[in-house]
Amino acid sequence: MPIKSRIRTIPDYPKKGIMFRDITTLLKDPVGFRLVIDQISQHYLEHGINFDMIVGMEARGFILGGALSYTLGKGFIPIRKPGKLPGEVIDQEYQLEYGTDKVEMHTDALEKGTRVLLVDDLLATGGTAMAGAQLVEKVGGIISDMAFIVNLPDIGGQKKLEDKGYKLFCLTEFEGE
Amino acid sequence: MPIKSRIRTIPDYPKKGIMFRDITTLLKDPVGFRLVIDQISQHYLEHGINFDMIVGMEARGFILGGALSYTLGKGFIPIRKPGKLPGEVIDQEYQLEYGTDKVEMHTDALEKGTRVLLVDDLLATGGTAMAGAQLVEKVGGIISDMAFIVNLPDIGGQKKLEDKGYKLFCLTEFEGE
Repeated sequence: MPIKSRIRTIPDYPKKGIMFRDITTLLKDPVGFRLVIDQISQHYLEHGINFDMIVGMEARGFILGGALSYTLGKGFIPIRKPGKLPGEVIDQEYQLEYGTDKVEMHTDALEKGTRVLLVDDLLATGGTAMAGAQLVEKVGGIISDMAFIVNLPDIGGQKKLEDKGYKLFCLTEFEGE
Repeated sequence: MPIKSRIRTIPDYPKKGIMFRDITTLLKDPVGFRLVIDQISQHYLEHGINFDMIVGMEARGFILGGALSYTLGKGFIPIRKPGKLPGEVIDQEYQLEYGTDKVEMHTDALEKGTRVLLVDDLLATGGTAMAGAQLVEKVGGIISDMAFIVNLPDIGGQKKLEDKGYKLFCLTEFEGE
């Protein structure tokens, strides 16, 4: 598994008991980086899955989203942490382990009916991806698909998103490890 | 100027008197996005400027850096805000208008002698770019060049970086506007 083997695991980060899957070792390898972008791009080209724009989740989703916007010839829209976008925004709260957080998108980022591929590096609880999808839908956009490098199915994000009817594509997963 | 005309100006953001140059309108246009990435890529290919890795500054530099890593076939290294990288890091302070801020890079992100292209969306004071360059040099890397979409030469970042011997490439600039 040329992609999975390039991902480094850092135990007990950000706190004891968490096995952090660190994609920086994958991205800094030029072959690894190209494999990631080519495999995701090819999936969407081969399956004829249709979308007009790519939405990237701050911050690691920007790395992936920028490259995919290029390879797939789509525009790029950032979903950002609060206070980072200069224009008029809408926001969406989501649940953290303790408390809540928020993400924002420009109100005029997309036209009604625009089909969107939402991308992020890693799918764990699915909280930020769900919040991103809600933002897109609030302004009349349609989530066509979601792409991630890493899926952690044990944490439940995949099930939560699929139960809501979202379709996903993940390059690799870490399960029961 | 197909790139400059796609950049939106938001007056009085983040505070009164600042004309904020908002690249989100450029990036969400698929033609605009492709022009940005192709023109920067072509600049480096045509001039034979040599580097092994691309370093992107969080967060908008990730969008640009991800796409350029793909087109130029290089690995990608993130420079992030404090507390975001899971491995061992080095940090570098830089001056804000009031107080200081900090950026971090993984200590093992690059090998000694690695040549680097540093990328960010906008060059204003040059503070974060300078801090990024210092991080790369602390671990023995060499800044081969720096690329930005927008230069604001009136604010002095270009002069500051060039005075230190850094070479830059900027796609467009806003001057005295």
